[in-house]
Amino acid sequence: MTGVTSRKRGRPPGTESSDTRDRILTAAREEFSERGYEKTSVRGIAKAAGVDSALVHHYFGTKEQVFEAAVEVAFSPALKMRDVVLEGPIEGAGERMTRFVFGLWENPVTRKPLLAIIRSAVNNEAAAAVFRRLVATQLMRRIADELDTPDAELRAELAAAQLVGVAMMRYVIRIEPVASADVELIIARVAPVVQGHLTNP
Amino acid sequence: MTGVTSRKRGRPPGTESSDTRDRILTAAREEFSERGYEKTSVRGIAKAAGVDSALVHHYFGTKEQVFEAAVEVAFSPALKMRDVVLEGPIEGAGERMTRFVFGLWENPVTRKPLLAIIRSAVNNEAAAAVFRRLVATQLMRRIADELDTPDAELRAELAAAQLVGVAMMRYVIRIEPVASADVELIIARVAPVVQGHLTNP
Repeated sequence: MTGVTSRKRGRPPGTESSDTRDRILTAAREEFSERGYEKTSVRGIAKAAGVDSALVHHYFGTKEQVFEAAVEVAFSPALKMRDVVLEGPIEGAGERMTRFVFGLWENPVTRKPLLAIIRSAVNNEAAAAVFRRLVATQLMRRIADELDTPDAELRAELAAAQLVGVAMMRYVIRIEPVASADVELIIARVAPVVQGHLTNP
Repeated sequence: MTGVTSRKRGRPPGTESSDTRDRILTAAREEFSERGYEKTSVRGIAKAAGVDSALVHHYFGTKEQVFEAAVEVAFSPALKMRDVVLEGPIEGAGERMTRFVFGLWENPVTRKPLLAIIRSAVNNEAAAAVFRRLVATQLMRRIADELDTPDAELRAELAAAQLVGVAMMRYVIRIEPVASADVELIIARVAPVVQGHLTNP
């Protein structure tokens, strides 16, 4: 992925360069979260990180590649979902996945980058492409690998769709009563649906 | 709603004024669809409609109010959902709702304004507020009225969330395989979930 390629192009990994890289990534995450993909510029990211724009290009390449690297980091907690699926018997995977996803959304620290990713992906084709690659190859396919059916990827995506839809209504657009309902009530309603998509005959 | 209020403030309804009003609304729908809420201006709408900005303000008020009127028109097919729910026994409401929603999304003419509404609501708080009012009061509450349980609104919203989530993944972000799957297969998987949210004990 981008991160690996650009590290190869950059200096040999040392404290200084990896600090700079992390500082740029943090700034990029902040900028994309605050402004969305379209209004964020490489120049703005460089300024926020206190470095020259050329250094941003040097480490990451284009704006789309900076976005991909930033999203990968922001998305990394979500990528643990596969471990969550594997953690116990498949009959409980629906509840474990649901609990895990709402855990990310209920925590302001992990909610912010998720909001930024969704906002950018909905409005910009380059951002949507990054989201597609990440969700399809890193998340959905991995979960599908754990399901023993030919339509595993479709099942994983319909399960994810229920979670995405509730997140949209609860956290992004905030429609009542779903926005203020107790999260345990939501989990109780949603987990069986997620389970059903994954394993119902 | 906005439309009624501004018509009162305007000239008595006649051919000329209602033509102008419709022309402004059509232009507004186009502008909001193409550019999203934030990049659309009353001036741009007026220009596209071939009228003076003052006339747009006269008929509709602020940009948020123009948006609300335009969205109401674009949203009006979706508001028929309540009739769809009422059309037959409640045990079939899940499939009827699901079929109806995918019918709107599969048709390019109705898909475009739905895309515009979602994109605007996800990225702009004023647009989200319009969406909330419309979805909550005009759609969810009406469907909930047909369900005979105390948690009817939450049920209607969780059902809608499954539909919104699939629409996000299939039509907005376009993640495979859900984006290219046969719509009848999607309906067969999703309708029982929608039904379950509405009526499961």
